[in-house]
Amino acid sequence: MNELDNLRSRLETFARERDWEQFHSPKNLSMALSVEVAEIAEHFQWLTEEQSRELDAAKRAEVEQELADVLIYLVRLADQLGIDLLEAARRKLAVNEAKYPADKVRGSSRKYSEYD
Amino acid sequence: MNELDNLRSRLETFARERDWEQFHSPKNLSMALSVEVAEIAEHFQWLTEEQSRELDAAKRAEVEQELADVLIYLVRLADQLGIDLLEAARRKLAVNEAKYPADKVRGSSRKYSEYD
Amino acid sequence: MNELDNLRSRLETFARERDWEQFHSPKNLSMALSVEVAEIAEHFQWLTEEQSRELDAAKRAEVEQELADVLIYLVRLADQLGIDLLEAARRKLAVNEAKYPADKVRGSSRKYSEYD
Amino acid sequence: MNELDNLRSRLETFARERDWEQFHSPKNLSMALSVEVAEIAEHFQWLTEEQSRELDAAKRAEVEQELADVLIYLVRLADQLGIDLLEAARRKLAVNEAKYPADKVRGSSRKYSEYD
Repeated sequence: MNELDNLRSRLETFARERDWEQFHSPKNLSMALSVEVAEIAEHFQWLTEEQSRELDAAKRAEVEQELADVLIYLVRLADQLGIDLLEAARRKLAVNEAKYPADKVRGSSRKYSEYD
Repeated sequence: MNELDNLRSRLETFARERDWEQFHSPKNLSMALSVEVAEIAEHFQWLTEEQSRELDAAKRAEVEQELADVLIYLVRLADQLGIDLLEAARRKLAVNEAKYPADKVRGSSRKYSEYD
Repeated sequence: MNELDNLRSRLETFARERDWEQFHSPKNLSMALSVEVAEIAEHFQWLTEEQSRELDAAKRAEVEQELADVLIYLVRLADQLGIDLLEAARRKLAVNEAKYPADKVRGSSRKYSEYD
Repeated sequence: MNELDNLRSRLETFARERDWEQFHSPKNLSMALSVEVAEIAEHFQWLTEEQSRELDAAKRAEVEQELADVLIYLVRLADQLGIDLLEAARRKLAVNEAKYPADKVRGSSRKYSEYD
C-alpha cells in the first residue's frame, strides 16, 4: 500500500465512523475542494509574485494547513469516484512530457499558455 | 523516496528542462490550482448529488484528467513552498480525529458544518 | 449615469483615496473575485439543493455580504479593464436567447449542459 | 426599475421559458459562479500583474465574455435568494468607507490585507 493509499484508507475510516459519508457526494466534495483552494489563493492575492516566493514561517505554516485540506479533499474525491489519483497524475505527466518537448518550448510563455 | 515525492521530483525536472520555473511562483500556481479545481466542479455543477455518484465511464475518464491536473499543481506548489504535503495532511487528519470524536458528532450535519 | 456606473465611480474614489490602486491589477482582482465567490460556495457546500433554496434569515444575511463583495470586485475588475459590464451581459444574454430557442431546449438537462 | 433589475427580469424570463428553473438552486448557481470566475482567472494566471493591465483587444474581448457570464450568474443567484444585489453592495461599501478611513490606511498593504 503506497503512502497516498494509506491516507485514502484513513480518510475512509474517518468518514465512516462519523457517518459523514452521506455528505461526501462527488458534487459536494468538488465544492469543498474549491473552497479550500480559495483559502490558499487568499494568502497570495495581494502579494507580488516575488513576495509569494518568500513567505515568513508563520504565513507558511498557515498555507501548509490549507494545502493539507486540499490534499485531503482531493484524495477523498478520487476515492469516491474510484479513481487512482497517483496513477492518473503519472499518466498525465507522461502525456505532457511527450506533448511539450523541452527543446521546442524552452522558456516560451506563449507555448506555456498553450500548454495549459 | 515515497510515491508523492517521486512525482514531485519528476515535476521539478519537467519544469527545469523547459525553463518554466519562472512561471511557477506560488501566487501563479495557486491560481492554476483554482482553475483546475473549477474544471472538476464544472462536471458536477448541474448534476444532482445522486447523479454525481454515478458517472458513466466516459465522464469519469474526463474527471480523472482534471483530478490529475489538480494533484500535479498541488504537488508543485507544495514543492515551491518547501512543504511536505503528505506529512501536512497526516498531521491535519490527526488533529481532526481528536477534535471530532466519532461518538459525539456521528451523523450530525450541524457538527459537520462546524467541522469544516 | 446608471446605477452600476455609480457604484463603479464610488469604488474608484474609494481605491484612489486610499492609494490602493496599486494592488488592483486585473490579475489580483481576478484572484480576489475567486476568493469571494468561494465564500458564497462555502455556505452551500454541505446543503442539499432543497436546503439551499430555504436559507433562514441569519444565513441569508451572511450570504448577502458575500454577494456584495463579489459584485464590488467584479465592477472594479471591469473598470480596470475598461469593460462595460452591463452592456457585456446584455449582449451575452441576447446571444444565448438566439442560441437556445425555448421550444427546442425546454426542460432538457442535456441541452442545458451543452448550453453551459 | 434600475438597469440591474432589468437584467434580473430578463434572466428570469429566459430560465422560465426554457423550464431551466429546476437547475437554478442557489447551490448549483454558486458552483456555476465559481466555474465562470475561474475562466476569468485562467486568462491571468501566467501573466505578470503588468501584463494583466495591458491586454490586447482580442484577449480583452474574451475576458469580457467571462465577466458577462459572472454578472449573469450573480444576478440570477441574488434573485433566487431574494437579495437586492445593488443595495447590498452599496451598504457594504458604506461599511468599508467607515472602517478604513483614508488617512489611516493610505498605501498600506498590511492594512489592505487586513481590510480584505
